Amino acid sequence: MAISMYSASVPVFTRTLGQLAAWLDKAEAHAQAKKFDTSVYLAARLAPDMLPFTKQIQIACDAAKFGVARLAGVESPRFEDNETSFADLRERIRKTVAFVNSVPASAIDGTEDKDITVPRRDGNIVLKGEFYLKHYVQPNFYFHVTTAYALLRHNGVELGKGDFLGTLS
Amino acid sequence: MAISMYSASVPVFTRTLGQLAAWLDKAEAHAQAKKFDTSVYLAARLAPDMLPFTKQIQIACDAAKFGVARLAGVESPRFEDNETSFADLRERIRKTVAFVNSVPASAIDGTEDKDITVPRRDGNIVLKGEFYLKHYVQPNFYFHVTTAYALLRHNGVELGKGDFLGTLS
Repeated sequence: MAISMYSASVPVFTRTLGQLAAWLDKAEAHAQAKKFDTSVYLAARLAPDMLPFTKQIQIACDAAKFGVARLAGVESPRFEDNETSFADLRERIRKTVAFVNSVPASAIDGTEDKDITVPRRDGNIVLKGEFYLKHYVQPNFYFHVTTAYALLRHNGVELGKGDFLGTLS
Repeated sequence: MAISMYSASVPVFTRTLGQLAAWLDKAEAHAQAKKFDTSVYLAARLAPDMLPFTKQIQIACDAAKFGVARLAGVESPRFEDNETSFADLRERIRKTVAFVNSVPASAIDGTEDKDITVPRRDGNIVLKGEFYLKHYVQPNFYFHVTTAYALLRHNGVELGKGDFLGTLS
């Protein structure tokens, strides 16, 4: 029993990335109804020195991608961070989900005590797999996903908690 | 091995609630420097139909409180949702941390398959303990904590990712 490293990572990320993709649909419908271009969302920020919407989605994807790749000890696909449209963002999410789903549970389970090297602005740090997942990857992932949600809400898109949590039954 | 239900709940919540309390200190310092009252933050919203700052903190605390109480099958302390100041919010966070820390690991470990009844606006739902923690409590907790962070950033408080993630070494 107990929660496996796999079940606390891949399904957590794919579930929420699926919600994120659905928010893009609602954002697109809102833009159409209000007659503005979806590109308006891409540069939206909550503060002048916060990252814009596109970057929030890129980093949310990367949190999942690098988290899974580092735990499993596999190479992660390189994304160019060149998304300039909703279609590009959808593709970024799709590629991320495809990658994390390609990693077998056996490569992630058992990595609780594995040393994970995490590049940080001020140098590498080394964290144990379980700490890395629970106190770095998960909060970082939810941080950027929630900020993307907040940006859409701030720009008038009708989303609710159900859109964030997804299906519960 | 594997992640225990306790380690994926209580320490996750107390760690991040500790960061949240520290953001209040920075927000207070910012208000003093800019000569406005901290009560201005309390009513701040990112959208007219989103919940204000005070409510974000109340719900973040409740996500932790009810999550832990329902998994452990213990009564949770009743909070009146009557916070009207930063001092009140600090006390709410303190009481929440004290409660979740009062629940022994033995009461939460092993609840992976326990049926948890979750009251929702449209009626009760029943989720298994592990699903409830990973796909309901954790995302809901991070949602409200991140929204509180976003509200402070939106109002000029100088916070960074380090303030969100906390100490990593």
